[in-house]
Amino acid sequence: MEFRISQEQELFKKAVREYCEKNIAPRSREIDEKEAGIPDDIIQGLADLGVFGCVIPEKYGGSALPGEEMQFANIAIQELSRAELSMSLPVYTLLTIGWGGFFISLYGNEAVKQEVLPKIASGQWSWGINVTEPGGGSDVAAIKTTGIRKGNTFILDGEKAYISQVRESQVRGGGHTTLVVSDPTRGIKGGMSLLAVMPNTLKGMTSTTYRDMGRMGLSTGGWVYRNSEVPDKYLLGQEGKGFYHCMEGFNPARALVAAACLGAAEKCLEIAADYAKQRTAFGHTISKFQGISFQLADDYNQLEMCKLMLQKGCWMIDRYYAEPGSFTQKQINVVIAQCKAVAPVLSADIIKRAIMILGAFGYTKESPLEMAMRGVMSYVSGAEGSFNIMRTIIARDVFGSEFVSK
Amino acid sequence: MEFRISQEQELFKKAVREYCEKNIAPRSREIDEKEAGIPDDIIQGLADLGVFGCVIPEKYGGSALPGEEMQFANIAIQELSRAELSMSLPVYTLLTIGWGGFFISLYGNEAVKQEVLPKIASGQWSWGINVTEPGGGSDVAAIKTTGIRKGNTFILDGEKAYISQVRESQVRGGGHTTLVVSDPTRGIKGGMSLLAVMPNTLKGMTSTTYRDMGRMGLSTGGWVYRNSEVPDKYLLGQEGKGFYHCMEGFNPARALVAAACLGAAEKCLEIAADYAKQRTAFGHTISKFQGISFQLADDYNQLEMCKLMLQKGCWMIDRYYAEPGSFTQKQINVVIAQCKAVAPVLSADIIKRAIMILGAFGYTKESPLEMAMRGVMSYVSGAEGSFNIMRTIIARDVFGSEFVSK
Amino acid sequence: MEFRISQEQELFKKAVREYCEKNIAPRSREIDEKEAGIPDDIIQGLADLGVFGCVIPEKYGGSALPGEEMQFANIAIQELSRAELSMSLPVYTLLTIGWGGFFISLYGNEAVKQEVLPKIASGQWSWGINVTEPGGGSDVAAIKTTGIRKGNTFILDGEKAYISQVRESQVRGGGHTTLVVSDPTRGIKGGMSLLAVMPNTLKGMTSTTYRDMGRMGLSTGGWVYRNSEVPDKYLLGQEGKGFYHCMEGFNPARALVAAACLGAAEKCLEIAADYAKQRTAFGHTISKFQGISFQLADDYNQLEMCKLMLQKGCWMIDRYYAEPGSFTQKQINVVIAQCKAVAPVLSADIIKRAIMILGAFGYTKESPLEMAMRGVMSYVSGAEGSFNIMRTIIARDVFGSEFVSK
Amino acid sequence: MEFRISQEQELFKKAVREYCEKNIAPRSREIDEKEAGIPDDIIQGLADLGVFGCVIPEKYGGSALPGEEMQFANIAIQELSRAELSMSLPVYTLLTIGWGGFFISLYGNEAVKQEVLPKIASGQWSWGINVTEPGGGSDVAAIKTTGIRKGNTFILDGEKAYISQVRESQVRGGGHTTLVVSDPTRGIKGGMSLLAVMPNTLKGMTSTTYRDMGRMGLSTGGWVYRNSEVPDKYLLGQEGKGFYHCMEGFNPARALVAAACLGAAEKCLEIAADYAKQRTAFGHTISKFQGISFQLADDYNQLEMCKLMLQKGCWMIDRYYAEPGSFTQKQINVVIAQCKAVAPVLSADIIKRAIMILGAFGYTKESPLEMAMRGVMSYVSGAEGSFNIMRTIIARDVFGSEFVSK
Repeated sequence: MEFRISQEQELFKKAVREYCEKNIAPRSREIDEKEAGIPDDIIQGLADLGVFGCVIPEKYGGSALPGEEMQFANIAIQELSRAELSMSLPVYTLLTIGWGGFFISLYGNEAVKQEVLPKIASGQWSWGINVTEPGGGSDVAAIKTTGIRKGNTFILDGEKAYISQVRESQVRGGGHTTLVVSDPTRGIKGGMSLLAVMPNTLKGMTSTTYRDMGRMGLSTGGWVYRNSEVPDKYLLGQEGKGFYHCMEGFNPARALVAAACLGAAEKCLEIAADYAKQRTAFGHTISKFQGISFQLADDYNQLEMCKLMLQKGCWMIDRYYAEPGSFTQKQINVVIAQCKAVAPVLSADIIKRAIMILGAFGYTKESPLEMAMRGVMSYVSGAEGSFNIMRTIIARDVFGSEFVSK
Repeated sequence: MEFRISQEQELFKKAVREYCEKNIAPRSREIDEKEAGIPDDIIQGLADLGVFGCVIPEKYGGSALPGEEMQFANIAIQELSRAELSMSLPVYTLLTIGWGGFFISLYGNEAVKQEVLPKIASGQWSWGINVTEPGGGSDVAAIKTTGIRKGNTFILDGEKAYISQVRESQVRGGGHTTLVVSDPTRGIKGGMSLLAVMPNTLKGMTSTTYRDMGRMGLSTGGWVYRNSEVPDKYLLGQEGKGFYHCMEGFNPARALVAAACLGAAEKCLEIAADYAKQRTAFGHTISKFQGISFQLADDYNQLEMCKLMLQKGCWMIDRYYAEPGSFTQKQINVVIAQCKAVAPVLSADIIKRAIMILGAFGYTKESPLEMAMRGVMSYVSGAEGSFNIMRTIIARDVFGSEFVSK
Repeated sequence: MEFRISQEQELFKKAVREYCEKNIAPRSREIDEKEAGIPDDIIQGLADLGVFGCVIPEKYGGSALPGEEMQFANIAIQELSRAELSMSLPVYTLLTIGWGGFFISLYGNEAVKQEVLPKIASGQWSWGINVTEPGGGSDVAAIKTTGIRKGNTFILDGEKAYISQVRESQVRGGGHTTLVVSDPTRGIKGGMSLLAVMPNTLKGMTSTTYRDMGRMGLSTGGWVYRNSEVPDKYLLGQEGKGFYHCMEGFNPARALVAAACLGAAEKCLEIAADYAKQRTAFGHTISKFQGISFQLADDYNQLEMCKLMLQKGCWMIDRYYAEPGSFTQKQINVVIAQCKAVAPVLSADIIKRAIMILGAFGYTKESPLEMAMRGVMSYVSGAEGSFNIMRTIIARDVFGSEFVSK
Repeated sequence: MEFRISQEQELFKKAVREYCEKNIAPRSREIDEKEAGIPDDIIQGLADLGVFGCVIPEKYGGSALPGEEMQFANIAIQELSRAELSMSLPVYTLLTIGWGGFFISLYGNEAVKQEVLPKIASGQWSWGINVTEPGGGSDVAAIKTTGIRKGNTFILDGEKAYISQVRESQVRGGGHTTLVVSDPTRGIKGGMSLLAVMPNTLKGMTSTTYRDMGRMGLSTGGWVYRNSEVPDKYLLGQEGKGFYHCMEGFNPARALVAAACLGAAEKCLEIAADYAKQRTAFGHTISKFQGISFQLADDYNQLEMCKLMLQKGCWMIDRYYAEPGSFTQKQINVVIAQCKAVAPVLSADIIKRAIMILGAFGYTKESPLEMAMRGVMSYVSGAEGSFNIMRTIIARDVFGSEFVSK
């Protein structure tokens, strides 16, 4: 066994942290307040550090260390969320890495890889996931948007909702890994396909955006497709197997979601501990009171346990692709579902308790805690898979399909 | 024993609910977004219903039913927070009722009662509490702002922070029940006094406001006093006994804080249950899944237990003033501290779980849940007494002073 | 509203407490270790105080104050479990009161009342509930034991399991309120009946007993009926309506189960607090540490909230029978389910944490805490209705039948 | 990083599991009921498998793989507690391994190693820890038993309490790592020493035993020393440094305590899951209900996270001794304290919830669950370091000594 990260990983972590603390943390509040997306220079800075390319092979402009892609990504996202507590940048990056860089490296054909991956690695393009529809998210098999093949194109019709980066993908360029019903007669076994859909080159599409509780530096919205044509070179993976590819893609994405939540919680916990060391009440710094110190200890404890499980999960994903036969998708499903089940709610609760330590000050916009809480709530609300779906996965893949409710 | 509220209380509750559902609920989002205070017509409407006057005797313009003041106030605040989920109005009202109407009825001298109470009952004036200083909130005995008697006036010098209604009290008129050190040599036993301080007639005062996570329809801020004179007719209670009066006043105020949190949580729970009845996934409305129904049952359970304890606490306060000898302050401290310890965190958590049921929709500003959560967080952060202070009160007044930490 | 108990209730409480502290508490360990049932003199002493008769009308030898039966029973059971921490006596008494005294007063015909109630009131007879079968407990509608009418008798065939007081009802006399399928073609609507079954006069019956984790002063076991005749005068309530009568009877029984758990937890909490006052570590009595005092405060808080809800529930049951139309069964179901959902697990957890305060000493049989925990676990395990059944009742009767899982 | 255990570890795990399932699990109830210690043949069987020797170098009769001692011990203890759910054997073994084999390998001088270690490796001797005194456990620095040097011996006077294996060490032979005050003028810095004390060769000693809630196959008790002489060759580590050696020794011991708790919880969770697959209610196996499946998933989740952290902790201890400079004691303190803080309470709660799934059957002595719960409660009660001490260690060693309460 070996629980230490490698020297290369340590160096990467150190470099990202330094950049983030200096260049990103001071602008986090501004990113949230402006509601105008992530500043270009920050994206460029991160691209230069290899953050967007850490899951992309060198031949496509990336800087991946083969067999360690997700380990590097995990490090990057945790560092980003430690610094950018509005959570706009971490979410932007994890989606772009997870559903863009990592997923297209796996499932894009050569032409798509050559077109998309260098633009992701360089920070030029944004990328996201495009599954949810107005009818709701958890029941992925129930989506209705069709993408019917007609010669060399798929014709999209339908509506997607609660999609991140609707605006970014149009302003910056880029797109979304998009799940459609390609054969309405066949269900999840053969009837769904994944397409790389880029709104800037798509006809017949209209988009809207919503306003959210938090991570205001990132857009959320939806679109309607009416007879929108996507060339079939943008098919990701096998035609008809989109549901399964999508489920596989959720594992790295959810791992990075957990990373984002845990990074933010870790930083907020440190903020609370630092505050407790200098704040005095009843004749002592409040750090002397077990009501404070034990809360911090308990929170640290749960946080570290989840972080460790997440390291394991990222390493397992890396092993899965680098060492065929090392692990099964089922084994990976369980570990990632564990992290995604725990991390968002735990992180929101840790931030809540950090606010309780800072008191009235923690409730103002002078402190980043309230912004972090609003940001993390997006994953508490269920983005990338709800808490109950995670519990279903764990029950099913650990104890057996007898534990899937009717 | 009798656990039913009276017919008069039922009628009052019904009237307030009807008014609120019709006139307030539809404007809650606007109140939050505008950050411009509570609309005049709403205040007027509530005043007409007797909401501001329900703790004020008829002779001062109020409509109190003697011996049931807090029971009526509890009903009013719960109804307000059910409807105005930004929490701006409930907080405005509970402070005005608790530290204005109720407290001044008890501790104002005749002149002050005649001056202030009719203006509160009619909705004209706002009122609040003015204790906390930049050094922090929990350790009330450590405040430093002085109010030294000089003939017929108290001269205020110092700084207060994290005060609600800093703007309202200047725009609408009104003031704050203000704790000062009147004799720096004597500590809490004889050295602190409470004054009714009205910023619009106070010289040498400057104020600032902050921006908060939520309840944006209400201002928070602070002020600096430099040689500011307050006539001694505005002394509330006995000179030198301000600390004790203030502790007594915290009980009704905290009761109403709990009422505000619980009302909001109750409404959010209903919103989640209604949503679960119509939302379909995996072939059923999601209400059929125990992951949903049991969560709602558990939350309902804790909510009802806290609401019941709060009813008891309000009734005990009413008995205390109406039937001397019926209960001690210590007994009341415990019950109110129990409610204030539980209600804010429980309510925030219930709303968090309601958001989890609504999913991505619950995270948008289309739903009021995110606004309710931001609002309730002000009391999670510790306003009107932190969680740990409540636990200290319970430990001390139930088990003995051996349980007060050094 | 009136949250105080009456003077008569206060006097009863005081009398029972005094008797229990003097005569029962010192023998609790012995009751558990001997595994030989409750000593006769204790039963006699409690009968003399009116404990067994507090739910039985005077004309049948009881001492009930009409309209306050359950309020008195609640007081009695809480006092018993405070003193007899093995939980043997509280369980014995609550079953005898709940399913004997209270239920037969409601549903026995005149002859049965005259035969049974005086023997219960005097402490001579034990009484219990006889529903569960080897196939399990929660799904009451699935029982298989038949009790088919043949002229003036019901012929019992089948098997019951996990029944309390199998031995006591044979040694002392008495019996069990027994649910049977009286018409296998009709299900719960018309096909089930309740009988008062007394093993000492029943032919064709064989019994076994099990060994349990705790409350060793009480027997648990099962029986097999083969062609066992019960005269039809022992029919309780309407023939065919047994399922519904049984559901109604669960409310008072579950209320008293909650009372037993909460009484034990309250006493254990006091034991822990007393210990913390005298035990020294790191230079202070451990009561000075917030790790101790806040835990006690939190536990006290939850305990009191549940006790208050239970008082309300008992009062509602009393109102239901004394003031027709005052409350519905549905309303009572909810409140009692809330108490039964919370009380067992909360009590076991409070006792667990009390053991943590006493440390290694709390783990020995020198302290009663371990015995209390083993005793309370019988209700955690689900006796008289599992946690999940309680949550189902709450979800169904609060939010609607849409929340009953398929 | 590498999260997989080695092939040798896999083989060891498999061998221990097979032996335990076949030879130990069927006799677990008997071990608890007889209260007569661990059967000789079981101890012999485990010794043959290398369980007692897995932390002892080959030259002293052990079978340790250098640098993997604690990893093997962790595996062994988890397997033992999966099979022997009364927890008697796991506790016996972890103490003998932790404070005997592992600690004496580190701190015994050559003569003591040659005398003691082979007897431990062969299963002949029992070994334990002997610190706690009647005044209590958490405040180790406050012990009073003296062991004053007089020439070549230490003279013991005082009293120890709540010591495991008081009887075993006299029946089988063996002893206890014993903390004494060797210089009352110097406190923990220079005034305490550790001795290997063997009761069978000690004069002036009298012992008593207590009865406990669980793990009845293991004795607990205390002893009084009056002028008892221990030759100074039995000094463990440096004279005067006993407090610090003892603190270091707590880390491996606590790791194995966590292992014992988690192994038992894992097995109980599996028992509950298996039961849920076959038990039917309301027309389905109860595994279909989310009230069951989600509880299992949540429990599994927390269990796995703690098990993973424990693997890391054991591996860190191994690295500490095998690779000087790799980790600090402080880093190890934190990880082990995390596991010891979480594992006992989590395990007791998981077993409690397993009992809730089995219902009334889980409460009987037909199922091993009640026995497991009673056994695990010994560590909930604080043996080998209380929950609050663990939180203090975490707060102190993560956030700084400002977080140690006064």
